[in-house]
Amino acid sequence: MPQVMEKVRNGVDTETMFATLDAIKATPEIARFQFRVHNHWIDGSHNRSTIQGFYGAGQEDTSRAAAFTIDAGEPAILLGSDTGANPAEALLHALAACLTTSLVYVAAARKVPLTRVESRLEGDMDVRGCLGISGEVRNGFEHIRVTFSIEGDAPEEKLREVLERATARSAVFDMVSHGVPTTVELG
Amino acid sequence: MPQVMEKVRNGVDTETMFATLDAIKATPEIARFQFRVHNHWIDGSHNRSTIQGFYGAGQEDTSRAAAFTIDAGEPAILLGSDTGANPAEALLHALAACLTTSLVYVAAARKVPLTRVESRLEGDMDVRGCLGISGEVRNGFEHIRVTFSIEGDAPEEKLREVLERATARSAVFDMVSHGVPTTVELG
Repeated sequence: MPQVMEKVRNGVDTETMFATLDAIKATPEIARFQFRVHNHWIDGSHNRSTIQGFYGAGQEDTSRAAAFTIDAGEPAILLGSDTGANPAEALLHALAACLTTSLVYVAAARKVPLTRVESRLEGDMDVRGCLGISGEVRNGFEHIRVTFSIEGDAPEEKLREVLERATARSAVFDMVSHGVPTTVELG
Repeated sequence: MPQVMEKVRNGVDTETMFATLDAIKATPEIARFQFRVHNHWIDGSHNRSTIQGFYGAGQEDTSRAAAFTIDAGEPAILLGSDTGANPAEALLHALAACLTTSLVYVAAARKVPLTRVESRLEGDMDVRGCLGISGEVRNGFEHIRVTFSIEGDAPEEKLREVLERATARSAVFDMVSHGVPTTVELG
């Protein structure tokens, strides 16, 4: 069944993908999504996010049978006991995951079969900012470097083009590189 | 042993905290940290980040005996099979975790005992951006709303003040609200 084999590329059902794109083009309102996280503090730098429901395609999504949980923590040197990746590392994970998924989807759409995708991310921070010691340095990373290693059935120039397109369309790359208006309130 | 009881507030060893702050004030170079994530693609929208080593306090940190892993995925409506929170949700987790830890540390430093901290985060997105259908909408969230619910042994005005200070010093809030110069390269 070579036709069935071809339908799924890089683990993405391309028939469903193109049908989804057509449906959104026809009815742009269904493109409105809202994602949510509930977080509760456990102790010290240990807190836990619970992630389940979201709004999308014109309705509240109830397809997730169980919630995902992600624990946060800090290493001893930052006054924690390593109960999870720290928040800055979690942000790097979000960026890596989004760039990778974007890359895999773009490659599927452009008929580029991938065999391996890895990325290494580094973020440099002077913690005098977030520790409240200095107003001269920013709180977050000064810069982030992402280096991809990609293998697939396409020349390097094609893989580079797919990575560029994926970066240009990544939701988290957009947010991390340009920022998002964010309000924090006491409810 | 009331003195020992007082030393640890909100799960944070305040003696160690103030000693750390003094050490950084005396030797600002030790404030330079580098956090890292390694991510590898599994299939479709499923990828996994591995998080262990980092550089800080003048040396490569080797205190973490094992790596943390965080899986990413997408729900069916976004062409995945729910192998983990999606990247945009992971970014909300990073923000929630950082604000919460910042809040807990600031409260510990200011002698405010906390009993409960919860937060709800919402991000609104028009997925026509990240799906490449429209150049009129951005790829990421248009805005993010964070609502905290905080209980502790302090008047509401004090809790509000602590939350404001925590937000002003949060590394991830800084990055998400202002953006970070980010480079993506094929290695």
